Amino acid sequence: MPQRPPAEPGMPEDEVDTPALILDLDAFEANLDAMAAFLAPTGAKLRAHAKTHKSPVIALQQMRRGAVGQCVQKVTEAEALAWGGVPDILVSNEVVSPRKLARLLALSGISRVALCADSEAGVALAEQAAAAAGQRLRLLVEIDVGAGRCGVPPGPEAVALAQRIAASPHLIFGGLQAYHGSAQHQRTPEQRAATIAGAVEHTRRTVEQLRQQGLSCEIVGGAGTGTFPHEATSGVFTEIQAGSYAFMDADYAANQDAPPFRHALFVLTQVMSTPRDGLVVVDAGHKAAPTDSGFPKVWQRPGLRYAGASDEHGNILVEGGTAPKLGETLRLVPGHCDPTVDRFDWYVGTRKGRVECLWPVAARGGMQ
Amino acid sequence: MPQRPPAEPGMPEDEVDTPALILDLDAFEANLDAMAAFLAPTGAKLRAHAKTHKSPVIALQQMRRGAVGQCVQKVTEAEALAWGGVPDILVSNEVVSPRKLARLLALSGISRVALCADSEAGVALAEQAAAAAGQRLRLLVEIDVGAGRCGVPPGPEAVALAQRIAASPHLIFGGLQAYHGSAQHQRTPEQRAATIAGAVEHTRRTVEQLRQQGLSCEIVGGAGTGTFPHEATSGVFTEIQAGSYAFMDADYAANQDAPPFRHALFVLTQVMSTPRDGLVVVDAGHKAAPTDSGFPKVWQRPGLRYAGASDEHGNILVEGGTAPKLGETLRLVPGHCDPTVDRFDWYVGTRKGRVECLWPVAARGGMQ
Repeated sequence: MPQRPPAEPGMPEDEVDTPALILDLDAFEANLDAMAAFLAPTGAKLRAHAKTHKSPVIALQQMRRGAVGQCVQKVTEAEALAWGGVPDILVSNEVVSPRKLARLLALSGISRVALCADSEAGVALAEQAAAAAGQRLRLLVEIDVGAGRCGVPPGPEAVALAQRIAASPHLIFGGLQAYHGSAQHQRTPEQRAATIAGAVEHTRRTVEQLRQQGLSCEIVGGAGTGTFPHEATSGVFTEIQAGSYAFMDADYAANQDAPPFRHALFVLTQVMSTPRDGLVVVDAGHKAAPTDSGFPKVWQRPGLRYAGASDEHGNILVEGGTAPKLGETLRLVPGHCDPTVDRFDWYVGTRKGRVECLWPVAARGGMQ
Repeated sequence: MPQRPPAEPGMPEDEVDTPALILDLDAFEANLDAMAAFLAPTGAKLRAHAKTHKSPVIALQQMRRGAVGQCVQKVTEAEALAWGGVPDILVSNEVVSPRKLARLLALSGISRVALCADSEAGVALAEQAAAAAGQRLRLLVEIDVGAGRCGVPPGPEAVALAQRIAASPHLIFGGLQAYHGSAQHQRTPEQRAATIAGAVEHTRRTVEQLRQQGLSCEIVGGAGTGTFPHEATSGVFTEIQAGSYAFMDADYAANQDAPPFRHALFVLTQVMSTPRDGLVVVDAGHKAAPTDSGFPKVWQRPGLRYAGASDEHGNILVEGGTAPKLGETLRLVPGHCDPTVDRFDWYVGTRKGRVECLWPVAARGGMQ
C-alpha cells in the first residue's frame, strides 16, 4: 500500500509530516535551466537518468527544456515513465530475464525503447524476445571505459558484438553505452578530467572502428553529474546521462570544483528527543536517508552535525549555534540522492517555505 | 503505486523476478518456534519488534506462539498492524507531532496502543492529544540504560517523569522502555553480558524506586536479538522486543556465539553480466540490499564474495568454486534485515525451492 501524502498544498513546510522528501522548486528549476543552458552550445543532448528521480513528472520537465528522453536502469522504471507519458526511454543497463524483456517490448506501443547488452548471450536473449513480440528492438553495446563493472572492452570486441546485433533480424544496432561511474566522485577536477579523457578516447576509437565496418551510432551515451562537461564537449558523446544534477547531494557537493547546481532535495526531519546538552535526536535515520555515501548534512544550521544513524533515529551533535527545540523541523541534505528518493512515495514540492505541489515517486521501489 | 508481486504460488524459486525478498518458511518457522521455546520457562513474554518485518501476517504468527503484542517505531507502522488485526501495539519510541498522536489515538478502537516519552514536554503533548481524543493513553518512560540515544537517566529523573504521567488525567503510567541498542552487535558474548548486566541493574533500581512511590510497571521492555537471553532471565524485564531473530542477517551472524537462529531472509538476485574472469555482476545493489551494516553474503556458494555495491549493481568476486552463469539466480543474506525488508513490497515465501505464498510488506516505507 502506498504511503499517504505527508502534506497538502498551501501548508507551511514546517507542518509537513516527517520524515518527508522536500523538493525546493526554485532550486530544482534553476538546476534544470542551468543544465539546459550548459548543453545547448555543445551539441550533446540530455537524456537524464531517471534512476535518480523515478518520476515522469520530472522527466517531462527535463524534456520541455530540451532533453531527448530518459535513461533508466530497470524495466519497472521504464514502465513507470512510459505510463506517465515519457516517449523515449533507454534502459542503460543489461536485462537478461525473458519475462522482463517481454515487459519492456510491451511498452513499445506507447514509447520508443532501447536496451544495452554486453554479451553474445544477452544479444541472443534480446533477439528471441523481440522475435516473440514481433518487433525490432534497438540494442546498444555497453563498453567498459574504465569503471570495471559491466561492458565489453572497447575496440574489436565491441565491434564484434555490434555486428552480431546488426545481423539479428529483430534487433537494430543503436550505438554505444559508455558510462564511467567511478569517475563521478573522484574529488579533484584534475582526476576527473584525466579519467574521462581516457574514456572519451576509448569511445572515440570504438566509434571510428564501427564506422569502418559500416555501423553508425545513433546514440553515444554516458556521463554523470560529476563529469558531464568533459563528455558533452568531447565531440564524441551525443547524449549526456546525468541525473543527480537536478537535486545535488552531499557527496557530489564534496567534489572539488563541483558543478554549480543548488541543493534542491532535502529530507525534512523533526526533533523527537533532546536527551542532554549537545545532542538532539531526529526522526530520520538511515531508513529515511541512506548512508551508503555518508551521513546527511544539516542545511543552513552551522554547528549542527548529523553524526550517527540508526534505523529510525538520527543523532545530531550541537557543536555550536543554537540547539533546535523538541518538535522543531530541520532540512537534511542527503548523502546520496538516488537511494534517498527511492525511500519515499511522495515529493513535497515547496517554494519559499510553503507546499506548492505533491508528485508521486512513481517508480519508487522499482528494482525489477 | 505498489510494485507488482514478483512471483506466483507454485513457481520454482529460480523463476522469481529479481531482486526479490525471499522468506524461507522452514527456517522462519523454526526461528519463531525456537524463540517461543526459549522464553517459555523465563516468564518474560515476547513483544516482537515489527520495525523488522513490517507485516501483520508475521506479527500474528508470533502472537499465536505466545507473543503478547508488537513493538513499532512509527505511527504508520502501528496503523498497518492495527488495520491487519494486531490487538496490542507499543510504540517503543517518542512521538511529538500532534497530528501523529491523533492518528495513534484513532487506532484505540481496534487495538490497545501505548507510547514512550522521555521529556516533560513529550508528556504534555501526549496528555493534550489524549484529552482532545477523549481517551486515556498508556505512556511508558524511556530510560537510557547506556546506549546514549533517547531516554531520561534511570533513577530519580525517570521516577519524576513517571509521576508526571500518573498525575495527568488522560494518561496511564505503563512502565519502562529500557532498550540497549548498541549492545546488540558487540561481538563477544562477554561484552554483551557485561553491558546488559549494567542495563539490568539500572532498570532494576528504577523499578524499585518507582515501587517505593507507589508506581508499578505493567511493562518493563527492552532487549534485541543480540542480548535477549540476559534480559529474559533477569527477573526484571517482562517483555522482550527482539525482531531480527525471525530472519537473522549477516551482521547478527557475525556476533561470536550468535543466537542459534537460521538465516530465513534472502534477497534473490540474478547474474546480469559476466564481464571477465573472476567477476560477475548481479542485479541487486544497495537499493535492494542496504549496506549500512556491511555487504550481503552469498548464500551457500563458497568462493563467491559480494565485494561492491552501486545503486542497482552488485559486484561478486569469484575467488573459488564455480562461477555462476549469466541469468543464474543467487540468494544473498542481507547485511541488515530491517532496512532490507523495507525496500520491498512483497515477501515471497518459499519452501523447499518452491513459492508457497506472497505476503505484503504492509508498512513498507512507513517512516512517519
